[in-house]
Amino acid sequence: MFSQRFNQLTPYVPGEQPQDRQYIKLNTNENPYSPAPGVSKVLKEFDAGALRRYPDPNADGLCQAIAEAHGIQREQVMVGNGSDEVLSFVFFAFFGSEKGPLLFPEHTYSFYPVYCDYYGIDYEKVALSDGYIIDIDGYMGRKACGAIIANPNAPTGILLPLSEVEAFLKRWPKDRVLVVDEAYIDFGGESAVTLIGKYSNLLVVRTFSKSLSLAGSRLGWAMGDEKLINALYAVKDSFNSYPVDSITQQIGIAAMKDRDWFDKTRAMVMEERERVGKALSEMGWAVLPSSTNFLFASAPGMDGKMVYEGLKSEGILVRFFNKPGLTPFVRITIGSHEENTVLLDGVRRIVGEG
Amino acid sequence: MFSQRFNQLTPYVPGEQPQDRQYIKLNTNENPYSPAPGVSKVLKEFDAGALRRYPDPNADGLCQAIAEAHGIQREQVMVGNGSDEVLSFVFFAFFGSEKGPLLFPEHTYSFYPVYCDYYGIDYEKVALSDGYIIDIDGYMGRKACGAIIANPNAPTGILLPLSEVEAFLKRWPKDRVLVVDEAYIDFGGESAVTLIGKYSNLLVVRTFSKSLSLAGSRLGWAMGDEKLINALYAVKDSFNSYPVDSITQQIGIAAMKDRDWFDKTRAMVMEERERVGKALSEMGWAVLPSSTNFLFASAPGMDGKMVYEGLKSEGILVRFFNKPGLTPFVRITIGSHEENTVLLDGVRRIVGEG
Repeated sequence: MFSQRFNQLTPYVPGEQPQDRQYIKLNTNENPYSPAPGVSKVLKEFDAGALRRYPDPNADGLCQAIAEAHGIQREQVMVGNGSDEVLSFVFFAFFGSEKGPLLFPEHTYSFYPVYCDYYGIDYEKVALSDGYIIDIDGYMGRKACGAIIANPNAPTGILLPLSEVEAFLKRWPKDRVLVVDEAYIDFGGESAVTLIGKYSNLLVVRTFSKSLSLAGSRLGWAMGDEKLINALYAVKDSFNSYPVDSITQQIGIAAMKDRDWFDKTRAMVMEERERVGKALSEMGWAVLPSSTNFLFASAPGMDGKMVYEGLKSEGILVRFFNKPGLTPFVRITIGSHEENTVLLDGVRRIVGEG
Repeated sequence: MFSQRFNQLTPYVPGEQPQDRQYIKLNTNENPYSPAPGVSKVLKEFDAGALRRYPDPNADGLCQAIAEAHGIQREQVMVGNGSDEVLSFVFFAFFGSEKGPLLFPEHTYSFYPVYCDYYGIDYEKVALSDGYIIDIDGYMGRKACGAIIANPNAPTGILLPLSEVEAFLKRWPKDRVLVVDEAYIDFGGESAVTLIGKYSNLLVVRTFSKSLSLAGSRLGWAMGDEKLINALYAVKDSFNSYPVDSITQQIGIAAMKDRDWFDKTRAMVMEERERVGKALSEMGWAVLPSSTNFLFASAPGMDGKMVYEGLKSEGILVRFFNKPGLTPFVRITIGSHEENTVLLDGVRRIVGEG
């Protein structure tokens, strides 16, 4: 009944969304603030009658807005139905050849091996160095068809500075693509988009789900050399000609253009992150240095699963990782000021003051 | 730079959307009427702040509404980002095995071979019988991993009656899936959904783009045995956990629940189809019997490309097919009463009264 390739799949498991009670949801790295006010205006003014028409298949207006916000050309931008879809197209287009396996960090976004299974791509994980840092040396001088890193990495939250990303590119073969998945870059990092003109084998992937507060809209994009972008369009047109619906295209434009809202809300998230991180450290937690909208941290004398279960009983959802090397930690999304205060109170009750 | 599989791709080409002037667009089978009034209400009342959260990954409310409208269980329904995405997941899950190639009609939706290239699936086309009818005998007694038919078929517009679909299933091996792509079924056909309880290897694929006037929202669904549906969820979770955004889920529910609007607008389309078909026949055209929202027809003494070009110069877009066997024809979408009248006037000017 099923195809051969179907039997190889191990699907990705997204963060839980339990319905048994109202939780403070700090488990899926959603933004505590609303999207830009212009998004609400788009919804109120959108002509529902226009939905009888297909959307612009290439989302030109949205790509133009993204290009302008990043100081690049429209031809260097492609959008998709969430960065998950964009990543899937990226894996299809650039990874899997006789040159060798795909390389990515030992601990990173757990969808990467799932895409590899989907398309039958060989991969090898590269160990992190001490302090859970992406180790550039580990990627060099070995057989590989390409590489992908999340920067900042997840679930560690640790940023590789832009100079290190460029150091990677300088040493990386020109005929292989390096993808930098910057889902969390707006919370303290500097994007590698400034390097795409210089390195034609660099592709930067971004999302509206985190810093732009639009997880519910499913929108992501890629930036890179026109040749890479054209390849992604060809993949798109072999999967679904119109991946982004008409309303979402308008919503994306409104969110992308409002740089004030974007800067204000991400600053608030970063400020809260410092407060929560400091409070946890003072209670004796080990908190990895975060450049994201979450903290990856371990409590004294409790593993991640125990902390998760304790906080869940307090009505607070966080995420733990049942993987060798990550079991001490929980990943805690930065919520609103009020949510974070409830979190810290909950932590005090279940773990104590350290 | 590119993967081996990337070099195999021949992307699908959607209908043209030229920007040089305002056309009467009868080339992409869009509905001339607006979606149900409830869709507009959803947009006006939707809380933009809720977009900061991920959507329901399985779209339970929407699947429930679809199940109720079709008298089946929620577990027999799966939705995706347009029926194009649903079809892609279907090809991944069910087609491609040592049992043989995928079978589909010689002339049908031209995305089918594109999906095959995407996933590396062997396929064989089965000739239509006289009158461009799907020939069931052609699918039987040969090696195959599965089969897919569009019913009514495109671009012919011809319906295989439900009794014939069941005749197909009776003769088809139980361990192979038959997919019936019913994009146009609401314009005069009877859906095979009534057979899914009886044939666990039948999968019915549908879209909101045509009879529900929501091409701009990108929404499609599959109905079948729970085992097939579960497989599609596993594929979805290996590609994009959240393929349908929060707003589209609500829009879909509003459109699916308004059966009065649905029945009224599709009746208007069918009535106009009869009027246009009769007028073309009276002018000497050969018009295939259509159970869709388009006509597949050939003008006396002109091939499809000539008719297309003549009508384009009149400001009317239709579609021709540069494929052996289909060159005499154009495919004309049924527009509003006014659009159809302009079309018929244009036809008279470029082809004459026959």
